Amino acid sequence: MSEIKKLGALLKEKNISISGAESCTGGMVAAEITSVDGISAVFNESFVTYSNDAKHRNLGVSSETLEKFGAVSEECAREMAEGAAARSGADIAFSVTGIAGPTGGTKEKPVGTVCFGLFFKGKTISKTAHFDGDRESVRKASVDFIIDLMISELL
Amino acid sequence: MSEIKKLGALLKEKNISISGAESCTGGMVAAEITSVDGISAVFNESFVTYSNDAKHRNLGVSSETLEKFGAVSEECAREMAEGAAARSGADIAFSVTGIAGPTGGTKEKPVGTVCFGLFFKGKTISKTAHFDGDRESVRKASVDFIIDLMISELL
Repeated sequence: MSEIKKLGALLKEKNISISGAESCTGGMVAAEITSVDGISAVFNESFVTYSNDAKHRNLGVSSETLEKFGAVSEECAREMAEGAAARSGADIAFSVTGIAGPTGGTKEKPVGTVCFGLFFKGKTISKTAHFDGDRESVRKASVDFIIDLMISELL
Repeated sequence: MSEIKKLGALLKEKNISISGAESCTGGMVAAEITSVDGISAVFNESFVTYSNDAKHRNLGVSSETLEKFGAVSEECAREMAEGAAARSGADIAFSVTGIAGPTGGTKEKPVGTVCFGLFFKGKTISKTAHFDGDRESVRKASVDFIIDLMISELL
């Protein structure tokens, strides 16, 4: 069984509703989730927030966080996940925010730096990963990473 | 050049900002749009609204429309596109709402029925298409359809 089918089966079996917020993956995680038939039982909505302004308006990420830590930070990822959970009312909410490239990298945060957030049961965890490869490789690796992280948390 | 690269180039060249709302495609269109590097110049946000409630809350689709015509209707598609435009402030906003299957089909609206909306320059158009094939085929055909529709409107 593919990882996304595993995640979908777990969510449906445990009746855990899901939402999320995506920046660099731009809807790829939501697209994967909705590839699972019958997922409407646990999935209502998700947010694609590419700009800082969209993260602030649609998810409530604070301007201070965006200014102080930047959009690609675990602080921002946590607020994105919490914002998606609050706005959707979902039980579990993920977030992905990173630098897919080819531009946008810095010395401190090179291309391939991706931060993740996961809100579940009133707690939010965050992670940072560095992926090699081009824009699509970084995005795909990010999708796999967050799906695996959600499976681990649910098990 | 692929269709999505054509669309991305048109948007960037004309400096037309884009947003959208997806039901059955669940983020696939936004994922395609964000596969174009440098698209952040014209793309801020997009909405994945799978349930009726999410369409109502996040996009302002009226309860009357959802009750009278259903979520898979040109009426709903129009309100989704207009809602995405209003909430994002984007110049052009698309919507996709359909029955990807394998379940959910009726005699009037069989699996593969997909409605599309497109708001541009103060006007909203809508279309209905019927696609053959399984869930992923219907979703992929829907993505291609709306991308082509946007390219036509922009040219």
